[in-house]
Amino acid sequence: MIYLDNSATTAIDPQVLRTYMDVATKMMGNPSSLHALGTTATRLLDASRRQIAELLGVGQHEIFFTSGGTEGDNWVLKGVAFEKRPYGKHIIISSIEHPAVKNTAEWLATQGFDVDFAPVSTDGFVKIDELKKLIREDTILISVMAVNNEVGSIQPINEISELLKDKPTISFHVDAVQAIGKIPVSEFMTDIVDFVTLSAHKFHGPRGVGIVVVKSGKRLTPLLHGGGQEMNRRSTTENLAGIAATSKALRFVLTDDEAKRNKVHAMKQIIFDELKQHKKVILFSKMDGFVPNILTFGIRGVRGEVVVHAFEKHDIYISTTSACSSKKNAAASTLVAMNTPSKLATSAVRISLDATNNMAEIEQFLTVFRQIYQELEKVSG
Amino acid sequence: MIYLDNSATTAIDPQVLRTYMDVATKMMGNPSSLHALGTTATRLLDASRRQIAELLGVGQHEIFFTSGGTEGDNWVLKGVAFEKRPYGKHIIISSIEHPAVKNTAEWLATQGFDVDFAPVSTDGFVKIDELKKLIREDTILISVMAVNNEVGSIQPINEISELLKDKPTISFHVDAVQAIGKIPVSEFMTDIVDFVTLSAHKFHGPRGVGIVVVKSGKRLTPLLHGGGQEMNRRSTTENLAGIAATSKALRFVLTDDEAKRNKVHAMKQIIFDELKQHKKVILFSKMDGFVPNILTFGIRGVRGEVVVHAFEKHDIYISTTSACSSKKNAAASTLVAMNTPSKLATSAVRISLDATNNMAEIEQFLTVFRQIYQELEKVSG
Repeated sequence: MIYLDNSATTAIDPQVLRTYMDVATKMMGNPSSLHALGTTATRLLDASRRQIAELLGVGQHEIFFTSGGTEGDNWVLKGVAFEKRPYGKHIIISSIEHPAVKNTAEWLATQGFDVDFAPVSTDGFVKIDELKKLIREDTILISVMAVNNEVGSIQPINEISELLKDKPTISFHVDAVQAIGKIPVSEFMTDIVDFVTLSAHKFHGPRGVGIVVVKSGKRLTPLLHGGGQEMNRRSTTENLAGIAATSKALRFVLTDDEAKRNKVHAMKQIIFDELKQHKKVILFSKMDGFVPNILTFGIRGVRGEVVVHAFEKHDIYISTTSACSSKKNAAASTLVAMNTPSKLATSAVRISLDATNNMAEIEQFLTVFRQIYQELEKVSG
Repeated sequence: MIYLDNSATTAIDPQVLRTYMDVATKMMGNPSSLHALGTTATRLLDASRRQIAELLGVGQHEIFFTSGGTEGDNWVLKGVAFEKRPYGKHIIISSIEHPAVKNTAEWLATQGFDVDFAPVSTDGFVKIDELKKLIREDTILISVMAVNNEVGSIQPINEISELLKDKPTISFHVDAVQAIGKIPVSEFMTDIVDFVTLSAHKFHGPRGVGIVVVKSGKRLTPLLHGGGQEMNRRSTTENLAGIAATSKALRFVLTDDEAKRNKVHAMKQIIFDELKQHKKVILFSKMDGFVPNILTFGIRGVRGEVVVHAFEKHDIYISTTSACSSKKNAAASTLVAMNTPSKLATSAVRISLDATNNMAEIEQFLTVFRQIYQELEKVSG
């Protein structure tokens, strides 16, 4: 099996799973319990939080655990909206956000908030000037992802941070689910960014665990009210085994991350160079300005799912852009926002690489690609 | 170690953990993916959902997965409130609900909803007549737990169901987190009940997984908007390993559940009979009308945490009522609602038994209890 769909989900690292097992087996206490079993659990929870904070370069009281990227995005958008409603009702998100941000914003629009969408260039980058024009007196929140999940374009978080430097009443949220490990943390964790969302299963951690960085002093109405866990900001019995496992997974992904990026970049370059020699191939992802792991392309006149299934016959797994939209048979919304003609957009498939892939797999992928291309070239007319 | 704090959390069953391991290792696909790895994942997800539905006696399309009891309670309360806001703004909950329900309802009160609290008797049972009086023309939701978490009183879900039979515009939610396995499913899953919340870690399943039963045709605004998973009602990449493990845990807890209840009941009876012979002991839980696993009592004049720590020295773990409130040093809110004088309420400790406990442990517990009682009797004055 050659798995090139790592942006959909990654395999859990065996050592990370071992941590999950060990904690689940040995630490049975509820961290909220008064007795020693609770204290031991709390200590591990704190240690995990501290390690994650150090890895991300933030304070340990700025780390909150969730059930995943979707909950994190929902929490930040709804939490800021409800918290700041007395001060304003205007929210700006980019036009290429993940559905967890986009659909949440659209729901908020049904609740009396005004939502604007910052457009992107045909290459897939938020246009700073257009974003700037959308800012109003009553803008309370801007949400822009660090890395787009469907084409891999790296968004100008630093420039937006510059823009918001003298606008402290606007909260800035960055969905970094596809960014962690793929670009340096400093590129999305700027001083101006207030909230950052992460998801463990995208970096070889367990499913069902996410992290939200809430910068010190930044307020959020809870999404989960209840027993008062997470400093009364996100209630529910803590998933201790999942959190400890996530802490380990984050340490792994950020160890030698530059070397891993270089390795992945080299693999992407080889595929990129080969694909561009085929005249019916359209490359939606580029090398510069894009993460090293995502390469989205299409074969003109061939629907993406045909290509996915053709590769699948060879035990190679790629995707029709995002996993979330793949079953809906719709064109990738990022490509639509990039003004890609819909006929081209429906041809898109995404290769998402990982440092666990190797050159032999890439060669095998390309061998199969050439074969598939030849077959499909004939039928695509 | 003698663990008698099973209402706070239970140890994960080794076979359940094995299932988690196996699925996490072998099923790496994202169920949303179009390719075979996604299909395989979806198949297991469906199988888990089907098994859980059969065990609970509902349809498989009525089962939704969450991150736990707290998310379930938040989803149902907020989901019904936002969904039905055009039709009414009145919500009734009992005065002894878990904070996941109570604090959510109180937040909704800040958002323009009217919340009333149905009082309970001094024994800890919702007063049907009082509840009935609270119902208004614009009541949209009633939420009453099946089993109270702090004293173990079984709430009159059947009588409330009778009351609501001819009031189809009122949604009925039952938090059954402390009920599953402790009373027959049929006692809380009546035809009139629309929504039921469960939490896996309370029945030897993994942390971070919950179930919400949403009866066919009942609508809920999503709490997690996003990629459209769970029939577009609860988005986020599914925690497949956790869900498969939960399915197994639920099967285990409902296998021979009556025999297990009888076993636990016998253990509780022995403790109950012994405790009531000590004149400074107040029994907040009774036998009849209470679940077999929860026994809350106090030693007059001795704060609950003193008792908890005294047992802890003997490697016996009990709790000052609910885990969620134990660190806040507050009297159990259930006892306050039962009109227990606050001096008595702060003496409360909760023993919560499980079928994995045995008579030898109970004897050991009682030996230690007698010793502690003698010591504390002197200091309690």
